[in-house]
Amino acid sequence: MKLNTQLIRPLVQKLHAYVPGEQPRIKGLIKLNTNENPYPPSPKVLKEVAAAVDGRLRLYPNPTAQPLREALAKLHGCEASQIIIGNGSDELLALAVRVFTEPAPVTPTRESKSTVQYFYPSYSLYPVLAATHGASVNAVPLGIDFALPTVKELRRGAAWDFEAALTLVTTPNAPSGKGYATNDLENLCKAQKGIVVLDEAYVDFAEENAAGLALRYPHVIISRTFSKAYSLCFQRVGYFIAHPALIAALDKMRDSYNVNGLGQIAAVATLKDIPYYRRNFAKIIATRERVAGSLALLGFSVRPSQTNFILAKPPGQPAKEWLELLRAKKILVRWFSASEISDSLRITIGTDDEMDRMLAAVRAILRQK
Amino acid sequence: MKLNTQLIRPLVQKLHAYVPGEQPRIKGLIKLNTNENPYPPSPKVLKEVAAAVDGRLRLYPNPTAQPLREALAKLHGCEASQIIIGNGSDELLALAVRVFTEPAPVTPTRESKSTVQYFYPSYSLYPVLAATHGASVNAVPLGIDFALPTVKELRRGAAWDFEAALTLVTTPNAPSGKGYATNDLENLCKAQKGIVVLDEAYVDFAEENAAGLALRYPHVIISRTFSKAYSLCFQRVGYFIAHPALIAALDKMRDSYNVNGLGQIAAVATLKDIPYYRRNFAKIIATRERVAGSLALLGFSVRPSQTNFILAKPPGQPAKEWLELLRAKKILVRWFSASEISDSLRITIGTDDEMDRMLAAVRAILRQK
Repeated sequence: MKLNTQLIRPLVQKLHAYVPGEQPRIKGLIKLNTNENPYPPSPKVLKEVAAAVDGRLRLYPNPTAQPLREALAKLHGCEASQIIIGNGSDELLALAVRVFTEPAPVTPTRESKSTVQYFYPSYSLYPVLAATHGASVNAVPLGIDFALPTVKELRRGAAWDFEAALTLVTTPNAPSGKGYATNDLENLCKAQKGIVVLDEAYVDFAEENAAGLALRYPHVIISRTFSKAYSLCFQRVGYFIAHPALIAALDKMRDSYNVNGLGQIAAVATLKDIPYYRRNFAKIIATRERVAGSLALLGFSVRPSQTNFILAKPPGQPAKEWLELLRAKKILVRWFSASEISDSLRITIGTDDEMDRMLAAVRAILRQK
Repeated sequence: MKLNTQLIRPLVQKLHAYVPGEQPRIKGLIKLNTNENPYPPSPKVLKEVAAAVDGRLRLYPNPTAQPLREALAKLHGCEASQIIIGNGSDELLALAVRVFTEPAPVTPTRESKSTVQYFYPSYSLYPVLAATHGASVNAVPLGIDFALPTVKELRRGAAWDFEAALTLVTTPNAPSGKGYATNDLENLCKAQKGIVVLDEAYVDFAEENAAGLALRYPHVIISRTFSKAYSLCFQRVGYFIAHPALIAALDKMRDSYNVNGLGQIAAVATLKDIPYYRRNFAKIIATRERVAGSLALLGFSVRPSQTNFILAKPPGQPAKEWLELLRAKKILVRWFSASEISDSLRITIGTDDEMDRMLAAVRAILRQK
């Protein structure tokens, strides 16, 4: 059964798929590699979801996730028409690339129309989404210590494209954990002619958020997810806040039933118990600061974080070797091969007990040397 | 807050989104408009899903839905590498358009490379998917009584494109309910140079299925869904069976975590209780035949069906008026404006009790005249 490979688009044949962090289900493994929340969803959420597991599974879910959109509109002080729900925010990021950028330069002089622009390092999915669509990529380095370049700096350099069809900013930044001031983000948005997505996947662990910008500027989109802060990775629910015309455009390309019913129910229930999650954010932030201090004392060069993970350069061996040494002790963290960060490990903040065991493993490795 | 509409691609601005059937939640309404199964999932499935509503919701689901792929491979007598799972089969159909067709003709002489081809009437999503991508459309009418044209007939007519990048065939056909012989489908596949998707969304209610063709021909894809026959619309799980190289190509464009975790668990549990679903298929088929007979006696022109719905031309008033008359009696069916079928109603097969109430409403309407 031989396949004629010409049946597959050349673009797809050349594509390198996004590589998600591993999801091993190994007994006793401490999983600190994909920034999941160590705390379960609120008991009220679990109760509401379990109660919905009945004959209704035979029916299609609400195609626009209307009750969830209304609850989110109330939370953010906007209209439901300014919210779109996705099968995780990843689906919406992919949709944004398809809705706002041309799959190839229209004419050589209008390259910007097909440009997906982002700072690096940031979320490694962005270049994959651009390549998948056939859009051009403009990747511009962040400043020293992953700082957001100012508009003045961007204008001085030649690399940044203020006309780019779509600019994606991970804020707070991943994988560095660096937080950005809303004021600086606003200045960037003001200077930018094309669409700007502020990808706030980790913002609940930060000091400020920029949600207001999506309500003030018609070309600014805020991306949020229930996965990380709200312990719902399993059920795939994310959302965008934006101008109703942008939401309507995204909606036209959306699969009609893109968000599963139990995910919708879980997300609506989550919004009814925000204090539970706020307590978890506070716990995770406290653990993060404690662990950052301990790692620093053990010789790690730890970057300040406003997320639920920390990026830290280990002492002695290269980071890639540390990845394996920790794995041998059943501690799974993340290492990226990109040159700007390949000297470091990204460590998700788990429970205090998990982090104590991670620190014990680090101490044991240091003793072995 | 005025929006510069140039921020949205011209293609998207011109797009008409797919219009799914209504999902009203009106008390006492008999919902026969979106081909949902009237019977709930197996009690064993509900039990397994409910038991999984726990702390695991905080974790990412299996990114490739591996346990489900393995269970389906066993069912179909193939390898897991020949299966891809989607967020409903709709997601996979959209993916197929993006993976196998160019978003615009590469050169005027190679139009076929960007062609999405299908018979009409069939699933009204296909032209939307093509338009969304920027692909060309080649829609060719079915034969008399929605028969599949033979290869000879297609060669005689000039309209069919044997080189089309992607051909989508709804089999059994929707919205007519007409079943196709595997032998005829095989002849079409053999003549076709591009990819052929046999969209078997309703095949469990038919006399035969063509799954074997995906295992015999490297350019043939079978599309299946857990939504209709397996009472799982709510959880969005569909799949393709195809050559491993086609699956690998689709996989590269797939969102990493496209299928929610509880949906994966529900689908795996479903495959462990197939006899329960087979009993439901038999019940639905028996109800379908009984209702078809009753409607015929009431003056409807009823088409033979191998699906869980029937297409029937009502007597007297136009079908569109019948839609409203039935709705006023809390019976919701589907009417399509497309000229080939605008004289008919598409009626989903519900429980015997629901269908008796539908028939009673029809009798009452006939008496009112």
